[in-house]
Amino acid sequence: MIVLERVGSGGGTSAMAGGQIYLGAGTPLQTKMGFDDDIEEMFKYLMASCGPEAPEDKIRLFCEQSVAHYHWLTDLGVPFKMSYLGPEITTDPHTDDGLTWTGSELAYPYDEIAKPAPRGHTVQLEGANAGLLLMDKLIAAAEERGAKLQTLAKTETLVQRDEDKRIVGVKVYIEGELKYVRVRKGVVLCTGGFIRNKEMIARYARDLQRVKLRVSSPSGDDGSGILMGMGAGGDAINMDAAMIALPYSPPRQLLYGVLVNGQGQRYCNEDLYQSNHGEIAIRHQKGEVYLIVDDETFARPEAPAEILAVGETYEELEGELGMPKGSLVHTMQVYNEHAAKGEDPYFHKRPAWLEPLDNPPYAAFDMREGKALYAAFTMGGLRTLPTGEVVTPNDAVIPGLYAAGRTTSGMPAYGYNSGLSLADTTFFGRMAGISVAQNDDA
Amino acid sequence: MIVLERVGSGGGTSAMAGGQIYLGAGTPLQTKMGFDDDIEEMFKYLMASCGPEAPEDKIRLFCEQSVAHYHWLTDLGVPFKMSYLGPEITTDPHTDDGLTWTGSELAYPYDEIAKPAPRGHTVQLEGANAGLLLMDKLIAAAEERGAKLQTLAKTETLVQRDEDKRIVGVKVYIEGELKYVRVRKGVVLCTGGFIRNKEMIARYARDLQRVKLRVSSPSGDDGSGILMGMGAGGDAINMDAAMIALPYSPPRQLLYGVLVNGQGQRYCNEDLYQSNHGEIAIRHQKGEVYLIVDDETFARPEAPAEILAVGETYEELEGELGMPKGSLVHTMQVYNEHAAKGEDPYFHKRPAWLEPLDNPPYAAFDMREGKALYAAFTMGGLRTLPTGEVVTPNDAVIPGLYAAGRTTSGMPAYGYNSGLSLADTTFFGRMAGISVAQNDDA
Repeated sequence: MIVLERVGSGGGTSAMAGGQIYLGAGTPLQTKMGFDDDIEEMFKYLMASCGPEAPEDKIRLFCEQSVAHYHWLTDLGVPFKMSYLGPEITTDPHTDDGLTWTGSELAYPYDEIAKPAPRGHTVQLEGANAGLLLMDKLIAAAEERGAKLQTLAKTETLVQRDEDKRIVGVKVYIEGELKYVRVRKGVVLCTGGFIRNKEMIARYARDLQRVKLRVSSPSGDDGSGILMGMGAGGDAINMDAAMIALPYSPPRQLLYGVLVNGQGQRYCNEDLYQSNHGEIAIRHQKGEVYLIVDDETFARPEAPAEILAVGETYEELEGELGMPKGSLVHTMQVYNEHAAKGEDPYFHKRPAWLEPLDNPPYAAFDMREGKALYAAFTMGGLRTLPTGEVVTPNDAVIPGLYAAGRTTSGMPAYGYNSGLSLADTTFFGRMAGISVAQNDDA
Repeated sequence: MIVLERVGSGGGTSAMAGGQIYLGAGTPLQTKMGFDDDIEEMFKYLMASCGPEAPEDKIRLFCEQSVAHYHWLTDLGVPFKMSYLGPEITTDPHTDDGLTWTGSELAYPYDEIAKPAPRGHTVQLEGANAGLLLMDKLIAAAEERGAKLQTLAKTETLVQRDEDKRIVGVKVYIEGELKYVRVRKGVVLCTGGFIRNKEMIARYARDLQRVKLRVSSPSGDDGSGILMGMGAGGDAINMDAAMIALPYSPPRQLLYGVLVNGQGQRYCNEDLYQSNHGEIAIRHQKGEVYLIVDDETFARPEAPAEILAVGETYEELEGELGMPKGSLVHTMQVYNEHAAKGEDPYFHKRPAWLEPLDNPPYAAFDMREGKALYAAFTMGGLRTLPTGEVVTPNDAVIPGLYAAGRTTSGMPAYGYNSGLSLADTTFFGRMAGISVAQNDDA
């Protein structure tokens, strides 16, 4: 087996990740920390949170095999600290705790759809991106088992046999020299997504033109694997699907804040996960949203966000923000009345984060696109079966062609939870590997 | 030249259309009716209203050639009545008037982007779908010029030459019998969109699963041309773009009504065109919207819509609708205060349609998805140059392959104005025809 790696070392964007892997259904870490979870609850949550195009076959298989996948990872030496980041906290990049909330499991409507459990399993590494450790362990395991890693190999095209379209070769530049690599059992495309390919973004996922921070390794996610697969007849689906994060917590006390749009209207429950917030703001609120806080809840978000307006009253604040007269005043008056009773009849923010914001001065953070930190990567890609086989728009399998990770349209079709990308790429990469190994020689 | 027509007669979904063609830049009909229009204003409007992916090259060419296209149509015998439907009216299916507003030209923000002009040019035919007359004229003109029409011809696959991928044949079932048609200069794919292909809708345009009325001829728009083009290596873009209409006028007095979402909030200017309303409601308001009227503005929409709630006060109405207490009451109080002054600081509905709705009883029409009439067709398709040539994801032209109409991604990428489909298919169909005629023989 040969791994054709474009840059000087392996790991790609996964090696830059925080190292969270979405796992559940009763992993040893969940059980040890006292959380009950099972296949059905995990399945219901993922189907609800991964969008209307969530692929039932992949999600079902993943939930059923999630505990086994945990053991596969730990057997290869991937470490998880037996600790829990804590209740009501989602991501915190400053700890090496093993178990974390990494999605909207606790938030409405998901809390009513499935029994919540924390499922973020963060690889243990202090003070660094644990994704690097994860990838080091996996690359070492592959090399131990005989895989040859060829770095500085820029793959260009797949070579197909005329009669049956089977992949029989790869055209590749190795350290600048053109080579043809003969393919025996098959090729697995794993080049990440296409957030760094401006033309593909313009063509398939125009909303992402409005997001400045591309979550990607510097030379990765150029869409090359998706284009190679399409060139071989593969179907590309959910191409406008994306993870769009708008992080405004930590610090967590900002979750007491209120999000409003340009008309001073609230538009969602603020305790949703950051990847929901970015998508809602960009796709449904024209990228024009603001975070309102009072003196007591005020804190500086760790992600860049400027204070756009300050006022002793909400009248003053809405005037500075150029909102229609009375709009924000009314929104905050209604919010505060209900928050005092621990209620949110509009959007069902949960009581833990409901407090009247009635201590002046008041401030508005500028969470508009182009101003606050929005971060994105693409989630669309080649259509694959749970086996990793790439299929055509007419549902035919392309013999010898497989793909995994963000090169495919995976579990998160629309809607995301942190950890799903590393889950997708490690689990369905494994499935693709198993498929290739069982394939006949060309 | 041979036309392979799937059913027993030509015209497809175009023959079912109302016969509106979007034309402008100073057509004889516009000029006669006293409207000033020019290429730049038309260009600015189309670029703004056809979405962030509006193709500048196609729209520029179309605006420059729009008056010439009008003459091309009338020279072939397509009749337009020299009359104007009237100010502040968009579509009215009951007249044969020639000139009509068929988009959001008069509504905010478009009125500030480009000088408004009516550009719907409706083919003159009383009491029927004028699209049929249009297609009859065009089919007759093609036959006069030597085109052979082969009906009951179900095209299945394109045959490509190995060395250069040139299209050299078509595999087709003619009256059930398999034939291979040799291609000399080229093939133009014109099979409409894919609103009737459930699998393609699930894969590419999931939002349309929520829309019940598919605007399509019974055996058309099955995506076959798009799939054939993709099978030959063609790129398909903007596949989730769609026209989604939510017609609630005529009667036009319903434009005085107020649209609110499930939280009793207004969310847009109600005087936008019907294709904006459907898209906003389905894509941005979770399909949960209501039309509020008072006794004076009350009228039955011609498109089906049920009265969901009636009340002597807005308190009563919001209670019946299950909205948060005080939400609709506040919205209507604010709307009425501003409307009395002819203002809408929230969404800039224009003064012509602003009246306080303060004459009880009040009613709410149920405009939710699954309840009111939502109608859709797809707008994504093969990526083509303005010449009609189909290109691959790597920007290569596929020799001998052309496409037009809804089989392509055309002028309306996201965002629609009535008449743009007939404009797209007749104009860029012409361009494809010119290109094919100039092509070398294979």
